[in-house]
Amino acid sequence: MNLKLFFSLVGGSMLLALYAHYFSGNEMLQFATSSLAIIFLAAWLGKSTESVAHYAGDRIGGFLNATFGNAAELIIAFFLVKEGLFDMVKASITGAIIGNMLLVLGLSTLLGGLKYKEQTFNGRLASHNASLMTLAIVALFIPAVFMFDLPMIKVEIISIVIASLLIIAYILWLIFSMITHSDFLSDIEPQESDAVWSKGVSLLMLAVSTFFVAVVSEWLVEGVQHVSKSLGWSELFVGAFVIAIIGNAAEHSAALLLALKGRIGAAVEIAIGSSLQIALFVAPTLVIISLLLGNPMDIVFTTFELAAIGVATFITISITRDGATNWFEGVLLLTVYIILGTVFFFA
Amino acid sequence: MNLKLFFSLVGGSMLLALYAHYFSGNEMLQFATSSLAIIFLAAWLGKSTESVAHYAGDRIGGFLNATFGNAAELIIAFFLVKEGLFDMVKASITGAIIGNMLLVLGLSTLLGGLKYKEQTFNGRLASHNASLMTLAIVALFIPAVFMFDLPMIKVEIISIVIASLLIIAYILWLIFSMITHSDFLSDIEPQESDAVWSKGVSLLMLAVSTFFVAVVSEWLVEGVQHVSKSLGWSELFVGAFVIAIIGNAAEHSAALLLALKGRIGAAVEIAIGSSLQIALFVAPTLVIISLLLGNPMDIVFTTFELAAIGVATFITISITRDGATNWFEGVLLLTVYIILGTVFFFA
Amino acid sequence: MNLKLFFSLVGGSMLLALYAHYFSGNEMLQFATSSLAIIFLAAWLGKSTESVAHYAGDRIGGFLNATFGNAAELIIAFFLVKEGLFDMVKASITGAIIGNMLLVLGLSTLLGGLKYKEQTFNGRLASHNASLMTLAIVALFIPAVFMFDLPMIKVEIISIVIASLLIIAYILWLIFSMITHSDFLSDIEPQESDAVWSKGVSLLMLAVSTFFVAVVSEWLVEGVQHVSKSLGWSELFVGAFVIAIIGNAAEHSAALLLALKGRIGAAVEIAIGSSLQIALFVAPTLVIISLLLGNPMDIVFTTFELAAIGVATFITISITRDGATNWFEGVLLLTVYIILGTVFFFA
Repeated sequence: MNLKLFFSLVGGSMLLALYAHYFSGNEMLQFATSSLAIIFLAAWLGKSTESVAHYAGDRIGGFLNATFGNAAELIIAFFLVKEGLFDMVKASITGAIIGNMLLVLGLSTLLGGLKYKEQTFNGRLASHNASLMTLAIVALFIPAVFMFDLPMIKVEIISIVIASLLIIAYILWLIFSMITHSDFLSDIEPQESDAVWSKGVSLLMLAVSTFFVAVVSEWLVEGVQHVSKSLGWSELFVGAFVIAIIGNAAEHSAALLLALKGRIGAAVEIAIGSSLQIALFVAPTLVIISLLLGNPMDIVFTTFELAAIGVATFITISITRDGATNWFEGVLLLTVYIILGTVFFFA
Repeated sequence: MNLKLFFSLVGGSMLLALYAHYFSGNEMLQFATSSLAIIFLAAWLGKSTESVAHYAGDRIGGFLNATFGNAAELIIAFFLVKEGLFDMVKASITGAIIGNMLLVLGLSTLLGGLKYKEQTFNGRLASHNASLMTLAIVALFIPAVFMFDLPMIKVEIISIVIASLLIIAYILWLIFSMITHSDFLSDIEPQESDAVWSKGVSLLMLAVSTFFVAVVSEWLVEGVQHVSKSLGWSELFVGAFVIAIIGNAAEHSAALLLALKGRIGAAVEIAIGSSLQIALFVAPTLVIISLLLGNPMDIVFTTFELAAIGVATFITISITRDGATNWFEGVLLLTVYIILGTVFFFA
Repeated sequence: MNLKLFFSLVGGSMLLALYAHYFSGNEMLQFATSSLAIIFLAAWLGKSTESVAHYAGDRIGGFLNATFGNAAELIIAFFLVKEGLFDMVKASITGAIIGNMLLVLGLSTLLGGLKYKEQTFNGRLASHNASLMTLAIVALFIPAVFMFDLPMIKVEIISIVIASLLIIAYILWLIFSMITHSDFLSDIEPQESDAVWSKGVSLLMLAVSTFFVAVVSEWLVEGVQHVSKSLGWSELFVGAFVIAIIGNAAEHSAALLLALKGRIGAAVEIAIGSSLQIALFVAPTLVIISLLLGNPMDIVFTTFELAAIGVATFITISITRDGATNWFEGVLLLTVYIILGTVFFFA
């Protein structure tokens, strides 16, 4: 996309959000405009990260892309944690995971599959992703089973231990996939890091876009509770479907474009890589952050959330295992997403 | 089999059932004779469907076979729904799914495996079946988790939404496997549709056999409750093991014969295809029918039933994934079937 | 290892245990010394079994290795059953299964993977192991779901039926893997059976080592309850982590040495084969033994134990499915082991 047009959209959406926030007094409008602004700001943040990553060289750049790839979600979740909205944090983590696996991957597979009869990708990557997703499921599932009626202090200790182990496992995964076994997983770098700007400007852009994402995220979080109440939607549904879709919009469009260009492997990597990053890095980081903020959040998800993450993982593993996709597999993923959306809406 | 002998068996079993129903007054005899009659009538209905399918051409014929393949089960279940015996409907759906996966596939694999050291089949088909079975599990599992203490009206709405989505997914699967990707799944047509009779006679046969299946199914359903009571067997056991085995007898013999001829791929397709059809088409259709009959049945299965379907699916996927079978895999499937039968009997 | 040195260690550790048991009066010391002695005695028992197996010829030798491979665990568990410590029996079964899958296999994969970039093994074996592990899970999972509120007598009947079925399935698996399809599973014999001693001495060694394992196991079991109490550790943790690691020490070292020699297939076979043997042979045998001792133990595991076995199996299947391992897969297995250890410790 033309850079000038892009910045007009970023700037315009931010001005709208600014106006609505300070002058409109209409909470629905505030929420809608800050949501729109976040979508464009997240795209800007993504572009800046890539540009910085380009100058940082292959390895450090890879790490940057992998750790800042979900920066927008992390920042939104940070403000949710700060407000003590732990239920919504967990719902939005759940929503981001199932949204990436079912909606992003489902649409990419369906639309890509309508154009190409079959698209194939690196099966070894699929196999590793399956094992990592299994670890993520296990790590989120165990606390819910075991902490059922433990005292609060033990729940907190276990949460911190598990969070730390997941972060370590994630760092080791980065070392594995980018250093020791980078040749095994040739699809893992979905896109070249583009140098949109010069080195200095890129760093500035990263700083500025992160700042603006943070500002507008705070507005978004302020608005979300009112919206939830006035529409009568549950926190679970708002967190898991509304917030998650807003935070993931950038990945959605990137994965779809790649699938339509026949590069389903890169689309799979974005969708599943992003899910893994949220489960193994964003979620445990939020647990640690909440501890530092003095109001510790545990890592215990509800049965609903675990069931949703579990079924999403289960069907995604089943579909990606063979390293090939077709339109009907997209239908399967989207069917599960709609079923989950329906029950979350009514539950 | 000789057609003359076949119709003697059909006619004889029907006369017996007729006599027992109107003149014997012995409920056990009524149940036994109508069960026997249903087994032969289901075989007749199957033959008629195939013969009509032959004249309808490949595609429409394929659709006919795929949708009428479980017509006997559907008709029996229809009368159970009409009588409001929802628990037995769900038990018989459960029993049909696990009976196909564990008993039919287990016996075929074991007996075929005693004759051939290893039998192989289209692995791509196995992979697609695994994904579809996963959808079926997910679709039956989600309502049970989420609807735990929802008001009745919401349970009904969600049941109808899920039932509709499953029927749509099933229709899209037929389009995928028979139209857009029929070349991928070369084992999917287990048998040529045979032209047993001329076109006109075939249609007549289809109509007459469906009529008789319906009549005797009603007798069967009338008798089943008395039998359940007088033997002291639970509805769960009668529905899941007795009714399901009677309704599936035709598939049982067809799959076994194919396995003994070395065509394990076709046997797998009958067994798993039939399970999928019941989970993705028969079960949701019964939900919609119950709504039209004014006495809506929800789609919420018990923990027992879901556990049984879950473990059956899990081990079947594990065994069929590699596209090869041997006698020991038949032992595994049958062991799980006997374990489930034991606990259903005592539970 | 030098035989002379080996027997010095065996003898020395036994003398220590003997002294502590009869003269020290210090329960912690008694437990520590009998644990140490058991580790060396189990190694001696293993060597004796192999030596007898060598003279018994390939087939009977194979059966011997497969059934006596976990003799030490079986003997320890026998005394736990005799003491009526059913909870600790089940915890130690759980611990042996997850210890083999996660700790033994995890360390072997990690350390082997630091030396070799990728190690491969017979994928067909991995696929069969996955199916058998699935049967094991199913067999342990079903009773827990279905027996929730059944009367005791039914629970006992079902336990005996399931135990018998599992033992039959295990015997059929031995026939399959050693007689009818031994050529398929070429990795299954991890080590040649060594003839350490002459035929007569080997038999004597087997008898003597079994006797000593039994004696010291009884001391160990006497001490374990006191240790559990004085350290404030739960029976669950002691059974699943302390007892299980002691009983498995011989397999640990054997698997590790093989992995470091690049023979990961043999290490996988020891680790997973041992888990299967415990789930399909040791556990049901203990149920039958408890019946013969007149104090029947049921086969119902706790939710915690099943969750632990379930997640261990799930991730192990995921990792071994492709017939190749690398260091990061070892990290994944060990991470899950540490997470489980943490929650078992605090729970």
